[in-house]
Amino acid sequence: MASATHLLTDELDIVIPTIRNLDFLEMWRPFLQPYHLIIVQDGDPSKTIKVPDGFDYELYNRNDINRILGPRSSCISFKDSACRCFGYMVSKKKYIFTIDDDCFVAQDPAGKPVNALEQHIKNLLSPSTPFFFNTLYDPYRDGADFVRGYPFSLREGVPTAVSHGLWLNIPDYDAPTQLVKPLERNTRFVDAVLTIPKGTLFPMCGMNLGFDRELIGPAMYFGLMGDGQPIGRYDDMWAGWCIKVICDHLGLGVKTGLPYIYHSKASNPFVNLRKEYKGIFWQEEIIPFFQAAVLPKDCTTVQACYVELSKQVKEKLGKVDPYFDKLAEAMVTWIEAWDELNPTGPGAKLANGKAK
Amino acid sequence: MASATHLLTDELDIVIPTIRNLDFLEMWRPFLQPYHLIIVQDGDPSKTIKVPDGFDYELYNRNDINRILGPRSSCISFKDSACRCFGYMVSKKKYIFTIDDDCFVAQDPAGKPVNALEQHIKNLLSPSTPFFFNTLYDPYRDGADFVRGYPFSLREGVPTAVSHGLWLNIPDYDAPTQLVKPLERNTRFVDAVLTIPKGTLFPMCGMNLGFDRELIGPAMYFGLMGDGQPIGRYDDMWAGWCIKVICDHLGLGVKTGLPYIYHSKASNPFVNLRKEYKGIFWQEEIIPFFQAAVLPKDCTTVQACYVELSKQVKEKLGKVDPYFDKLAEAMVTWIEAWDELNPTGPGAKLANGKAK
Repeated sequence: MASATHLLTDELDIVIPTIRNLDFLEMWRPFLQPYHLIIVQDGDPSKTIKVPDGFDYELYNRNDINRILGPRSSCISFKDSACRCFGYMVSKKKYIFTIDDDCFVAQDPAGKPVNALEQHIKNLLSPSTPFFFNTLYDPYRDGADFVRGYPFSLREGVPTAVSHGLWLNIPDYDAPTQLVKPLERNTRFVDAVLTIPKGTLFPMCGMNLGFDRELIGPAMYFGLMGDGQPIGRYDDMWAGWCIKVICDHLGLGVKTGLPYIYHSKASNPFVNLRKEYKGIFWQEEIIPFFQAAVLPKDCTTVQACYVELSKQVKEKLGKVDPYFDKLAEAMVTWIEAWDELNPTGPGAKLANGKAK
Repeated sequence: MASATHLLTDELDIVIPTIRNLDFLEMWRPFLQPYHLIIVQDGDPSKTIKVPDGFDYELYNRNDINRILGPRSSCISFKDSACRCFGYMVSKKKYIFTIDDDCFVAQDPAGKPVNALEQHIKNLLSPSTPFFFNTLYDPYRDGADFVRGYPFSLREGVPTAVSHGLWLNIPDYDAPTQLVKPLERNTRFVDAVLTIPKGTLFPMCGMNLGFDRELIGPAMYFGLMGDGQPIGRYDDMWAGWCIKVICDHLGLGVKTGLPYIYHSKASNPFVNLRKEYKGIFWQEEIIPFFQAAVLPKDCTTVQACYVELSKQVKEKLGKVDPYFDKLAEAMVTWIEAWDELNPTGPGAKLANGKAK
């Protein structure tokens, strides 16, 4: 276990999009029970979710989202795990760990259960190094450091905003790859954490993800997916492109690598293909858009960056499909809702329910 | 072992800067004996280097370098392992593997000896992915692929020019870090190969390095170090910055990670500090210079890129220290010498001694 000061039990919420699997929380109990859970139910609000005894949790269904956000609830996806981002918004904690209910506890090569949350906390509490690559990976890990030739002026690093964890067993493949390689399993445990360099985009998966809500929360919007939308399975990708551009602009770090979870179940590739297929075309235009996106210097808050990005989405991606006009509007609605639930300024900390 | 088609015994030379350690080649015999060795003696030409029986090799000392290059031999360092780059120039093979004589065979976590050369060949023969980060590392390795959200248009990758291997036991630290952490050993075997993204610089170490001479050879110049120079231990760093900028410009890939060698012996940190100390200041200006360097579109060969880079070095780094004026001139001399020994154009392949 991490030292007591690194447990952050009062500073971290765990956000889970629906729990269909009763074994899930039992398996994670040794690691997650000390934390507060925010469960966001993605489907029919009349169905009840059973949470085992001993967990401290709050549960939001669609009726709750509609009641709390009113007309702004339109920015939260329905019947899709993208709804989890509502949990990021209602949390009052500094850190978030989000995990899917088909992600079980992995084992390290020695057979020891991996405390994924502890590793995310380590990743988030140590700096990132986006400006120059360190060949021995995360220089802040025990037994590692900056190698010869690493500029000393860059060795303090920058604050880490996002910790992206990986998956053993079922890899996070798209539908075409799933169809072509139905039996492929990820068995390679790569004992590394590394900073994704500035200017480089990556495919962020929401299955096993930690982040600093105060640093990047307002950009962690999972978009419009699922019911009534032309696309699915791009919720975390969208968030990943947005957060990376904004982290690069604001001088924040994004790490990937450890911790692993054990991804138990492959989703249906045929269903996935239906959800993804527009995205397979669109990503060929979305990624160059994000690679070229420049934020003005006067965008100094995540909210300002995000609203600016929404304008660029409307202007540049609106031509690709009308969906992006709608998404750009939802991005603004999301920020409005975020700011309403997370007021800042004099007295805000109190109104915000923060003990700090 | 790699399959026969991947051994490349006729297409790869091994370049070693002096061999002080008789155990070195014995230890590597199972892996390196099928290859041709080029040994470049870094110091007193009257001293003889003993090569064990059974190895096919050619040996160059300072007298040979002077004889072959004439006045242009000024670009090759003396009394410094930077002289190894002369071996890159006289080789007629497509691939180079260079290794230091204090690098022994590492073991993988299962205790199996690591055939470093075989892994370099795998890295060089499979493409690189510099334009977008793949979270499961090298997508071309067995059991891995591109993850969800990776653009399909980028999945062919680009040719790999450089394979940068790592070191177990003694890590490649600078003198200050050596002094502060004299007992630190690298024991973490990270089972990964990854492409260093476009636009990102890295500290390239020459201890355990493979590259494609035809793709990037003329940029693999190890600069002016050692006898008569104000600096040492920046030979491989200099080459690393130059090759990365040129690979990014030409659309070539640079990989780092596997293979590991076992680095047996820490060099003296006090001696290193004397060699490095100017570099510790200078790298704070050199790295921003290379980060900002832009090569014109009409630079379509490595040679043209390198000569252009030499001009920018003179113009921008000459202000830092007169050493960089001298280095910029040596960069041009190096290209002249390279082209003389490696003629191109009609009949060049024949004159060049190439069987192809």
